[in-house]
Amino acid sequence: MPEDFVVTPWEVVGEVDYDRLIEKFGTSRIDDALLERFRKLAGELHLMLRRRIFYSHRSLNWVLTEYERGNPFVLYTGRGPSGHTHLGHLMPWIFTRWLQEKFNAKLLFQLTDDEKFLFKPELTLEDTRRFAYENALDVIALGFDAKKTEIFLNTEYIKSQYRLALKVAKRTTFSTAKAVFGFKNETNIGLIFFTSMQSAPCFLESERQGKAVPVLIPCAIDQDPHFRITRDAAPHLGYPKPALIHCKFFPSLLGGGKMSASKPESTIYTTDSPSGARRKIMDAFTGGRETARLQRKLGGNPSVCSVYQYLYYIFEDEDEKIKQRHRACTGGELLCGECKQYLAEKVERFLIEHQKRREKARDVLEDYMVRD
Amino acid sequence: MPEDFVVTPWEVVGEVDYDRLIEKFGTSRIDDALLERFRKLAGELHLMLRRRIFYSHRSLNWVLTEYERGNPFVLYTGRGPSGHTHLGHLMPWIFTRWLQEKFNAKLLFQLTDDEKFLFKPELTLEDTRRFAYENALDVIALGFDAKKTEIFLNTEYIKSQYRLALKVAKRTTFSTAKAVFGFKNETNIGLIFFTSMQSAPCFLESERQGKAVPVLIPCAIDQDPHFRITRDAAPHLGYPKPALIHCKFFPSLLGGGKMSASKPESTIYTTDSPSGARRKIMDAFTGGRETARLQRKLGGNPSVCSVYQYLYYIFEDEDEKIKQRHRACTGGELLCGECKQYLAEKVERFLIEHQKRREKARDVLEDYMVRD
Repeated sequence: MPEDFVVTPWEVVGEVDYDRLIEKFGTSRIDDALLERFRKLAGELHLMLRRRIFYSHRSLNWVLTEYERGNPFVLYTGRGPSGHTHLGHLMPWIFTRWLQEKFNAKLLFQLTDDEKFLFKPELTLEDTRRFAYENALDVIALGFDAKKTEIFLNTEYIKSQYRLALKVAKRTTFSTAKAVFGFKNETNIGLIFFTSMQSAPCFLESERQGKAVPVLIPCAIDQDPHFRITRDAAPHLGYPKPALIHCKFFPSLLGGGKMSASKPESTIYTTDSPSGARRKIMDAFTGGRETARLQRKLGGNPSVCSVYQYLYYIFEDEDEKIKQRHRACTGGELLCGECKQYLAEKVERFLIEHQKRREKARDVLEDYMVRD
Repeated sequence: MPEDFVVTPWEVVGEVDYDRLIEKFGTSRIDDALLERFRKLAGELHLMLRRRIFYSHRSLNWVLTEYERGNPFVLYTGRGPSGHTHLGHLMPWIFTRWLQEKFNAKLLFQLTDDEKFLFKPELTLEDTRRFAYENALDVIALGFDAKKTEIFLNTEYIKSQYRLALKVAKRTTFSTAKAVFGFKNETNIGLIFFTSMQSAPCFLESERQGKAVPVLIPCAIDQDPHFRITRDAAPHLGYPKPALIHCKFFPSLLGGGKMSASKPESTIYTTDSPSGARRKIMDAFTGGRETARLQRKLGGNPSVCSVYQYLYYIFEDEDEKIKQRHRACTGGELLCGECKQYLAEKVERFLIEHQKRREKARDVLEDYMVRD
C-alpha cells in the first residue's frame, strides 16, 4: 500500500496519519497505564498529555523507572533556527517547561544553526545565528529555570559536542542515513553528517557526570528519525539510549497538515502584533458551513477546524469547556465568528504577555547561554 | 584502458604511474621554467625540487606571483595521526620547513585526529589524540619556527574551523564526494563530511585577516582529491583557491609502492632505535643481483632499489655524489652491502639527532599548539 504522506525531519507532505506513523516509525503509543503513571509522578497531567497531543514515545517507562529510583532524567530538545518562532514551535516547548517544573529536570536546548545553514540555500551562518538568538528569547520567555537550562548554538558549542558527534558518525553508515532521511545524490555532505550533531546532546550529560544519565526528548514526531540513529549507536558507545516523547504537528490556520513557515498566514509568530494575529485568526479556515443558517441547522465540524484545534492544542486548558465547545459547534449553537473572537482574545492576551517576557529575556539571555 | 593503480587519500594500490596521475587528477607538472622561478625567489632549490620528488602542482605560478607582489602565502599541511611518524611522513615536512625558511611563511599544521578515528575501526579518539601529540613532536623537531607555526588537533580546534567546514560542506554534494573519494554505502557519515574539515584551514587565514591570503599546500599527491573539492568551493565562498605542490610517495624498504604503516619493516619510524633502523636497512630490498660476482659483472638496478631511493629522496643532498653512486651501482663497482652501510650510518646519525630534538620539543610543545 503506497503511503499518501511523508514525514522526515526536513519534509512533511500530505495528510499525516498519526496511528500509521507509530507503526511506520516503530514507536509506542502512550496508553492509559502510562498516562496514569505520569499523573502519579507529576501530580497532574498536562493538557497535551490528556488530549493525546503528546501521543507516542520510546523508552518512556524506563525513564520514569529511573526517575523513581532516584536517577533523574535530563530533558533535551531544540530548534532549527530558520526563521522566527511560531506557535507550532512553542507547543512542545510549553510542554517541556511543564516537564522541567514537575520533574525538576535540567534542560539542554540545542539551536541547530549549522543544520539550517546547510539545509536552506538562501541562509548564511549569520542569518541562522541571528534567528537562533531570536528563538532563544522565546524559549526563555516561556519561563524555563535559568539555573537548570542550557541553551546553545551548535557553531558556538561545537567543541563540547564534536567528539560525541564523531562517535555517533563512526557508527552510522551512509546507507543507514540514506534509508532514514531519504538522502539523494545532490544532498550536501554537511547535511549527511548533521544527524550526528543532533545526537550529541543525548550523551553530553552522561559524559560530564561520568555515569549513565537518562535523557528524555520531547519533540514533534518528525524528529524521531534522528534519534533512531542515536539509539542504534548508544549501546555501542556505552551510553543509555535516549527516551522520546512525541507530539503531533500543530495545525495550520489554513486547514490541512502541519503549519508552514513559508506561508506566514498559516501560523502565528511570537513576533506578530496582537492585532495582526487577530486578523489571521479571523481569516482562518474553520469547520463551519457556508451560511449561518446552514450552520445552525447542520452544525459545524470541529475536527477540521483550525480555530477549534488551536483551542484544543494550547489555548483552552479546561477539558469541560473544550467539550462543551465541541458540543455547541456540532449542535449548531455556536457560529464561527464567536469562536474566532474567543480564540483571538486568548491569543492576543498570550502574545502581549509573551512579548513582554520576550523583551525581558534579552537582559537574562546570558544566564541561559552556554558556549565553548 | 583499465587503471592498474588506485590513489585516493585513504588507499594507494598498485604501482603508481606518476605521469599518468598528473593527467588523471588534472594537475600540472613542475616544469623547468617554474623551477627556475622558484630558484630565483628562494635563492636555491631544495633537493626534492631538483630531483622532481615534488613534481606536480596547482596554481603554483599564481602563488609565486602574489608573493612577488608582496602578498605572502601561508603554508598548510598536516598529518592523519593513526600511528607513529615514519620517514614517509617526514619527507614533505622537511620540504615544508625549507619553504617556511626561504619564504618566511607562516605554517598551519592540521592533525586530523577526527579523520583517523573515523577511518580506523580499532582507534579511539584517545588513541588518535595521543598519536597526534607524538606526531607534533616530530614536526617541531624538524625546526619549524615557533613564531610562525600553528599546530592543532581538529577536536581541539574545531570551533575555529567548523564554520569554514560547514561552508565547504554546503557546496559539496554527496555525488561529488563519492566520485572523488569512492565512498560506498558502508562508508560512515563522518568520513563523508570529513573533507570539509581538511578544507577549513585553507580559508582560516583569509578569514582572520579579512582579505584574500594565498595558501600553498605541500603534500603527497594522494591528498589532492580533498583540495579539488576545496578549490571548487573557494570562489563561491569568496576565498582564493589554495595552491598545491605535490610529492611522490616515499618508497618502501621492501620495494614496490608506498611504504605501509601496517608493515613496520617497510619503513623507519622516528621512534625506532638507531640500531633497529640499521637492521631494517640491512634487510631492505635492493636492486642488487643474486651474487656479488653477478653484481660486479652486470651491475645493480638503482631504479628499483629502496636503499638508493632513500638516499635520493632524503639522505644524499649532493647531486654529484648521488650521480656517482648511480654510476657505480650500474657499473658493478658498488655492492649492496656497502650501500646499505652508507645509508645506515646516515639514518642512524639522523635519528640520533632527530630524537634529541624530539625530546626537547616536549618542553616547547605549547609554543606551537593552538586550541579554541
